[in-house]
Amino acid sequence: MTSIQSILQGDQRALARMLTEIENDTPTGRQGLDALYLHAGKAHTIGITGPSGCGKSTLLNALVRQMRAIHAGGQIAVIAVDPTSPFTGGALLGDRVRMRDLALDEGVFVRSMATRGALGGLARSTQAVCMALDAVGYDPILIETVGAGQDEVEIARLAHTTLVVEAPGLGDEVQAFKAGILEIADVLVVNKSDQPGAEQLKQALDAMLEMGYALQMNEAQPKPNSPVWVPPVLSTIALDGKGVLELIGVIDEHKMWLKQSGEWERRERVRLMAWIENIFREAVWQRWQGEQSAYDMEQAIEQVMKRKLSPYQAVERLLKK
Amino acid sequence: MTSIQSILQGDQRALARMLTEIENDTPTGRQGLDALYLHAGKAHTIGITGPSGCGKSTLLNALVRQMRAIHAGGQIAVIAVDPTSPFTGGALLGDRVRMRDLALDEGVFVRSMATRGALGGLARSTQAVCMALDAVGYDPILIETVGAGQDEVEIARLAHTTLVVEAPGLGDEVQAFKAGILEIADVLVVNKSDQPGAEQLKQALDAMLEMGYALQMNEAQPKPNSPVWVPPVLSTIALDGKGVLELIGVIDEHKMWLKQSGEWERRERVRLMAWIENIFREAVWQRWQGEQSAYDMEQAIEQVMKRKLSPYQAVERLLKK
Repeated sequence: MTSIQSILQGDQRALARMLTEIENDTPTGRQGLDALYLHAGKAHTIGITGPSGCGKSTLLNALVRQMRAIHAGGQIAVIAVDPTSPFTGGALLGDRVRMRDLALDEGVFVRSMATRGALGGLARSTQAVCMALDAVGYDPILIETVGAGQDEVEIARLAHTTLVVEAPGLGDEVQAFKAGILEIADVLVVNKSDQPGAEQLKQALDAMLEMGYALQMNEAQPKPNSPVWVPPVLSTIALDGKGVLELIGVIDEHKMWLKQSGEWERRERVRLMAWIENIFREAVWQRWQGEQSAYDMEQAIEQVMKRKLSPYQAVERLLKK
Repeated sequence: MTSIQSILQGDQRALARMLTEIENDTPTGRQGLDALYLHAGKAHTIGITGPSGCGKSTLLNALVRQMRAIHAGGQIAVIAVDPTSPFTGGALLGDRVRMRDLALDEGVFVRSMATRGALGGLARSTQAVCMALDAVGYDPILIETVGAGQDEVEIARLAHTTLVVEAPGLGDEVQAFKAGILEIADVLVVNKSDQPGAEQLKQALDAMLEMGYALQMNEAQPKPNSPVWVPPVLSTIALDGKGVLELIGVIDEHKMWLKQSGEWERRERVRLMAWIENIFREAVWQRWQGEQSAYDMEQAIEQVMKRKLSPYQAVERLLKK
């Protein structure tokens, strides 16, 4: 039996080994990816993001437990993305330990991802790992990001359904939401909703969404067969599981909306196009590099160092050759 | 008089306009960059990074004020990089307001940079803006990043001298330093050094550096003409300016070390090579995109959507054409 066959039949060790190959982008990883890809395309991917301190990991734990309780047979995967910033590296340790509890459940597969590699590298490998888990039959797949920078937001955006988690008392919450949130959130969650300020936070989010929704309605008339999804704002207390069942209900609703409105296929297409572009860019660059003479490159850098050419002029000259 | 001439003669408005063109990568910006580049290459660039809450911006303010007091004639530039994460967006407002005080000093030029654009875009435009300020004669140029993700660390690394700022009471500091810090820090600063835990933090950092230094010494014997720079750990209280003068002294020492050891030129070369590669990649990709038939691309995506080809296989096929 090939390793792909054993992976498809549920061998978690073989799967873990293959994911490492895929992450490292080895020839074996590429082959595995090519083979597994043909089996993927079924799983619902759920992104979870939000500022540190909002209780994201606790909420993720509660979600997975309750999802497991509801769909007893279903296998769930969790991808925890940690861009290993030198600053947040340590802070995540606690979360990862908590995650290990989940991993004790045989129906849950947990994968931590981290890379300090090239730009775009983490998004690319997260997508590849997600696809492999999808091929094996994990569904849903939850992708948690630490939610600090643009990269993590991009990764969250790869999901079918993106939850943005907030909590009261993390600073100037309303300001923090001014940019970008409306575009990425399918569902907003006010966690720690028993704490002071939770109600105001919820109201502020509701008001902001209403405004954004009104703008959207002005800009483009929604088509009859794709009613606009207005991101709901839910309240949870992840620590004792309050509101988590309702959240699962809304996630399921969003999935249904995605399928019925054609948005599922549209997002899939956008996601695949971005993936292909990413691979394409890298491949084109590698091919060019292979064709470049090291001497020409060295000459160009010399000219730039001596301020005889600007970097743009140097590149132009290299391209002409 | 052309706009480049007025910029070189100190017209700050013309400079600000040109920086916007450069940031937006317009044809005017490219031309300006080509012209200004030939005048650049003198300024000492100083990166300042660290976790939020460490008092980075206050320290930067104190640094600039004291530098201005010491070198009365010198013109200083500050680039404040804000990757506009939807989560930290609001938190930075306070800093930016404080920054405006600096901008009242005519000898200080402050530029805020933000982009939500493509990967690599922020590093590329920060470098371009830094070069333009260098050409005009600003020296030193301080680059502040919010220090959350990998991108910001990359930007800090573009500088000749990188300060990593920490403060007690921000969580598990020692853990937070485990990865990456030794590689990017030229100078470590324990800010808020009057607060509880500052001494332990300093000791932990010293111990860690000593260990890292010992490892480094084992790995490679330093060449006689380039003695290894051991990053010192300084204590400051930025709020009342304590330790800031010493910090400036160490920054100057580091600059001298860079020049004498040949490291200045080496870093310049690495920086320019990365810049050229960045421009090159983008140019190569755009050229390829121009040559691709939209039909072939569409076909490839269709095949991938239908799971008949994996993304890698699709790219391979496109490259063969």
